[in-house]
Amino acid sequence: MKKADVKELILEAKKAKGLGWEEIASKIGMSPVWTTSVCFGMNSAPKDKADMLVALFDLPPEASAVIQECPMKIWDQAVPTDPAIYRLYEIVGVYGETIKEIIHEKFGDGIMSAIDYEMYIERKEDPKGDRVVITLDGKFLKYRAW
Amino acid sequence: MKKADVKELILEAKKAKGLGWEEIASKIGMSPVWTTSVCFGMNSAPKDKADMLVALFDLPPEASAVIQECPMKIWDQAVPTDPAIYRLYEIVGVYGETIKEIIHEKFGDGIMSAIDYEMYIERKEDPKGDRVVITLDGKFLKYRAW
Amino acid sequence: MKKADVKELILEAKKAKGLGWEEIASKIGMSPVWTTSVCFGMNSAPKDKADMLVALFDLPPEASAVIQECPMKIWDQAVPTDPAIYRLYEIVGVYGETIKEIIHEKFGDGIMSAIDYEMYIERKEDPKGDRVVITLDGKFLKYRAW
Amino acid sequence: MKKADVKELILEAKKAKGLGWEEIASKIGMSPVWTTSVCFGMNSAPKDKADMLVALFDLPPEASAVIQECPMKIWDQAVPTDPAIYRLYEIVGVYGETIKEIIHEKFGDGIMSAIDYEMYIERKEDPKGDRVVITLDGKFLKYRAW
Amino acid sequence: MKKADVKELILEAKKAKGLGWEEIASKIGMSPVWTTSVCFGMNSAPKDKADMLVALFDLPPEASAVIQECPMKIWDQAVPTDPAIYRLYEIVGVYGETIKEIIHEKFGDGIMSAIDYEMYIERKEDPKGDRVVITLDGKFLKYRAW
Amino acid sequence: MKKADVKELILEAKKAKGLGWEEIASKIGMSPVWTTSVCFGMNSAPKDKADMLVALFDLPPEASAVIQECPMKIWDQAVPTDPAIYRLYEIVGVYGETIKEIIHEKFGDGIMSAIDYEMYIERKEDPKGDRVVITLDGKFLKYRAW
Amino acid sequence: MKKADVKELILEAKKAKGLGWEEIASKIGMSPVWTTSVCFGMNSAPKDKADMLVALFDLPPEASAVIQECPMKIWDQAVPTDPAIYRLYEIVGVYGETIKEIIHEKFGDGIMSAIDYEMYIERKEDPKGDRVVITLDGKFLKYRAW
Amino acid sequence: MKKADVKELILEAKKAKGLGWEEIASKIGMSPVWTTSVCFGMNSAPKDKADMLVALFDLPPEASAVIQECPMKIWDQAVPTDPAIYRLYEIVGVYGETIKEIIHEKFGDGIMSAIDYEMYIERKEDPKGDRVVITLDGKFLKYRAW
Amino acid sequence: MKKADVKELILEAKKAKGLGWEEIASKIGMSPVWTTSVCFGMNSAPKDKADMLVALFDLPPEASAVIQECPMKIWDQAVPTDPAIYRLYEIVGVYGETIKEIIHEKFGDGIMSAIDYEMYIERKEDPKGDRVVITLDGKFLKYRAW
Amino acid sequence: MKKADVKELILEAKKAKGLGWEEIASKIGMSPVWTTSVCFGMNSAPKDKADMLVALFDLPPEASAVIQECPMKIWDQAVPTDPAIYRLYEIVGVYGETIKEIIHEKFGDGIMSAIDYEMYIERKEDPKGDRVVITLDGKFLKYRAW
Repeated sequence: MKKADVKELILEAKKAKGLGWEEIASKIGMSPVWTTSVCFGMNSAPKDKADMLVALFDLPPEASAVIQECPMKIWDQAVPTDPAIYRLYEIVGVYGETIKEIIHEKFGDGIMSAIDYEMYIERKEDPKGDRVVITLDGKFLKYRAW
Repeated sequence: MKKADVKELILEAKKAKGLGWEEIASKIGMSPVWTTSVCFGMNSAPKDKADMLVALFDLPPEASAVIQECPMKIWDQAVPTDPAIYRLYEIVGVYGETIKEIIHEKFGDGIMSAIDYEMYIERKEDPKGDRVVITLDGKFLKYRAW
Repeated sequence: MKKADVKELILEAKKAKGLGWEEIASKIGMSPVWTTSVCFGMNSAPKDKADMLVALFDLPPEASAVIQECPMKIWDQAVPTDPAIYRLYEIVGVYGETIKEIIHEKFGDGIMSAIDYEMYIERKEDPKGDRVVITLDGKFLKYRAW
Repeated sequence: MKKADVKELILEAKKAKGLGWEEIASKIGMSPVWTTSVCFGMNSAPKDKADMLVALFDLPPEASAVIQECPMKIWDQAVPTDPAIYRLYEIVGVYGETIKEIIHEKFGDGIMSAIDYEMYIERKEDPKGDRVVITLDGKFLKYRAW
Repeated sequence: MKKADVKELILEAKKAKGLGWEEIASKIGMSPVWTTSVCFGMNSAPKDKADMLVALFDLPPEASAVIQECPMKIWDQAVPTDPAIYRLYEIVGVYGETIKEIIHEKFGDGIMSAIDYEMYIERKEDPKGDRVVITLDGKFLKYRAW
Repeated sequence: MKKADVKELILEAKKAKGLGWEEIASKIGMSPVWTTSVCFGMNSAPKDKADMLVALFDLPPEASAVIQECPMKIWDQAVPTDPAIYRLYEIVGVYGETIKEIIHEKFGDGIMSAIDYEMYIERKEDPKGDRVVITLDGKFLKYRAW
Repeated sequence: MKKADVKELILEAKKAKGLGWEEIASKIGMSPVWTTSVCFGMNSAPKDKADMLVALFDLPPEASAVIQECPMKIWDQAVPTDPAIYRLYEIVGVYGETIKEIIHEKFGDGIMSAIDYEMYIERKEDPKGDRVVITLDGKFLKYRAW
Repeated sequence: MKKADVKELILEAKKAKGLGWEEIASKIGMSPVWTTSVCFGMNSAPKDKADMLVALFDLPPEASAVIQECPMKIWDQAVPTDPAIYRLYEIVGVYGETIKEIIHEKFGDGIMSAIDYEMYIERKEDPKGDRVVITLDGKFLKYRAW
Repeated sequence: MKKADVKELILEAKKAKGLGWEEIASKIGMSPVWTTSVCFGMNSAPKDKADMLVALFDLPPEASAVIQECPMKIWDQAVPTDPAIYRLYEIVGVYGETIKEIIHEKFGDGIMSAIDYEMYIERKEDPKGDRVVITLDGKFLKYRAW
Repeated sequence: MKKADVKELILEAKKAKGLGWEEIASKIGMSPVWTTSVCFGMNSAPKDKADMLVALFDLPPEASAVIQECPMKIWDQAVPTDPAIYRLYEIVGVYGETIKEIIHEKFGDGIMSAIDYEMYIERKEDPKGDRVVITLDGKFLKYRAW
């Protein structure tokens, strides 16, 4: 059993049970983004959360160990084609140098960690059309001099 | 005179005057990310803001028209190498499918616009190490059926 | 069952029933391009249209939910090789900068949306050889300044 | 003198004279898309039109021969990054197979020519936001059997 | 049944019957290059020729419709590796600009069509070693000005 | 002085003298394709032909040695974008496997040489539109077994 | 049965019979490099040699025809990763221009054929560590002028 | 002064003095391949050989230090296009796995070094056409187990 | 049975027996990095070590020969995406030229071997957060002049 | 003045003064790897170290600010060609998955930081040939669950 198999099982169970990601996340006491990424096999969960997912989705017991495994994070498309994902890539291309500049102004030479990292996605109501608000929250890591 | 020339002039003037991007942005009444991206040539400014930048940095008068031009937004590296920018690319790779899934759950079939779009970067104090918080805020665009 | 499976089933049923895309589209009250793209798995349909397709092609009932799913839009060839598709790619290469220029002249800084978007394909009779006429119709999206 | 030089000269003269592409096109009796693509060096003009452009923009006389030359049509980015152009590329990716299918249904095995080809760009007013309408009009070419 | 399946069946039947491509072509009254390309799935045949191929190779009856289908022309290797095919690619690289120049000199601005196109391959005897002679014969397409 | 410089000089002289490639070729007693490829720097000429080109175009005397040099044959675009050249690339993609098959049927295992090679380009009149006829003529090279 | 299947069968039989490539080559009266390349499916063998391989490895009789087929020579990695093969690629990168220069000095404008070609691999004893000696032996092919 | 500058100076002096690479190599007591690769900037020379090259070609004295520098060995084309170099690349593609297999049979697990490495190029007379013979001679390096 | 199959079997047995790589390595008297790379199929083991692995993991007897085979070392991602591996790639990008410079200063012109090579990974305790320490230890190979 | 200019100036001054990187590093009280990477423009230095470098190399005073700037870390070659650097890339390819596995065994799910990172290069004497020893020392970063 691999992470891809567990993902398939979870997606089927989720549809059968009529659960949404927000609901699943709140049932295991974690955030929706992290929970979804664990179910999609792009993050590992600690044992207690893995067990809760197994129980919630009636997965076979060996799925818990698979959910706890450190994933090999691979994506095939260097430039993603799906429009919803491409727009994020485009934002990195258009605003990447700007973000780098402002991080350096606010923090000095270093980067925002993608490991010690959290992410939130919200719907903001707007009379001209509701808006997607995505929050990236990563620890600042300073370059070491030695 | 091209946008790359104006960028060079602005960066020199900024260093000479000892100005920071936050300060520059507040002087023209706009946000720091947008202001920086305009100065870097990745966005166009309306005439009044362009004129304010020309005055602030003592640029030659023809620079205003250049700042107002619609830019050709080109980036050379399909996969960026600078670590500060690469981490953003990595986030798109690791969390792209997750973000797509949650947008669809919250909004239905569509995307977050990268055009009708705002972005903010903040420093969040944290005793374990301060954190970079980046907020992406784009209008939801629904796929049209016809 | 995935979108690729539904596409296979639809293509078989279409051949067996001797239906054309124009006819299929008019039966569900939508345009031929949108209808074909839904059947090919590159767009999602609302429930009523999905149910009509299931009925029209005698698909298994679970196909309706699949047709309603938000698709992961992936194409493998960054540069398409099929001559009918390559010519479209070539038009983007040869006329891309021209189109950008004229959009900016007519609308200001922004883009034509590929999401809030419609497309039509017609045959135009011409004594020197009939012509293909493709109409792209997308909402203008203006860059936001903030 | 090369086509890139003529393009530079034309863009400067156009700005100095305050001319728009529609106006330029109507002065030489051609369409705006074709006229812009000639000025950008992606099409050749017949002698009379080239001479009219030279006169209109006060170009040096040798520019006429350059405008008449058959251009080497090169684009550097296999996947364009500018959002206004990328959206067109995305449309080819998302709808390419659909367009191919419908051309074959309406015409048989063959393609829409990108050589015996015309293109128009219009602004369509719409209370929910004006729309960009691009019309591609190319001769159908049938595959020859021999 | 797909074009790849038909190709497999034809190659097996061809070997079993001891037929050569020239012979097959003459039996259906077409040229060897076109006939081979149809059997390899890179061209569609009209109904009468498809039926003749089905009869000649004792294919299952549904193969005729497959042979008549408009193929999706895909090749995986942007730069082919097989030496016999690479040499053709090399000729395009070495002589491409030369061919373009001479076409323009003889015909004006336009291209040789790869759709309204025929091709022949002959063996020319030569005491220093026989020679392969390949003839490309395509309609000249003139760029349209509009 | 490099081959690129000689090419520039030749193209200027050719335009000034109003010569065509057919005429140039016949003046030096060679074929138009070979002559053009030498002038474009993609082939080397023997001393007598190089001297004739120098005389014909009034080139500086050191150009003769440059024309005799073995060129470094480099092309930048693995997939050419110019439509006139791309169609040749497309022919290799669509018909490459077919050509390989027929060469093997007529000659056995081996290839058509691109070195011991000649090429001709002719205009063939046709009431439905004149045709470009390109002839590739290369020595068959048999794989050696040892 | 395809060349890949024959390769599998040969490798199994070779292991079972405890044969080395030198021994196999001498049994069929050919060189080890050619023999190995035929068994790996990268060269075709004449009928007598193919039959000898079938007998030597107790292959099914239809394998002989497969071994005689002209192979489609495909390699997936434009830049090979295996260190033993990469070093050869590196030698082409580092010494390619040097080899070209020396071939031109010794022979004039032309190339070393990779078709009319032999290759040998020997072990040379050396007190500082034995050495691999690979000999490339290809016919010189002169560029034709026409 | 960089290695590219020294290469230019050497090539000019070589042409002016009418020297060949064999002659140059014998004057400095080294092999032609190594000597050429040093002059082309793809190898470093010890001080005595560098000084001999400076004297032989009347280079400015600072060239000696440049010739002694460890070069940054860069080649731009992952797949070389020049036919003389491409054939070497093709040999790596066609015979790479074969060479790896035979090295492992003769030596065990390891590679031929491209660093502790020599190379020779000879002309072998042959009534059917002279042949290029290239000898690669590299130390066998065994994988270490630890 | 191939190396990929053996890897699967070992990973299952390792999980079932609750063994860690350090423990496995010490049982066969080798280092953890080498042992892991052998089990992952990226190195070959001598017979005695292969037999010990077969015994330790209760593998089928033919696995020993597979473990002794010289592997074809292939990695699919020219730029790895997994963050743990990408950081190593990034280090090569950021510090590659620096490492080259210092090797040349300490040793002269040559390289660190990746074949006669050892590697160690340790955990170093640190009150600010423990550290990963990776040691690369390869024989210096000097470029040969000949 | 840019980092590339400062690098040029430093390399010239270093050669003129006959300084080695170890010596330079000890004069500014830092390690050789970090010092070299700063001089090569791939790291920023704090003000005191930048001033010491300016003094040591007699650089113009504005160089200090440039040395303190946060660099844009760009490398052009996704796969490096220089053999000394390629071997490091090869080690990432061959041992990347092994290193990931052992880090996860020793630390859990996370990575070695390339930012909070140090590196050392030493020469280890060995009677069979001296060895290069490179030590990578990076903080372990644990994936955050939220």
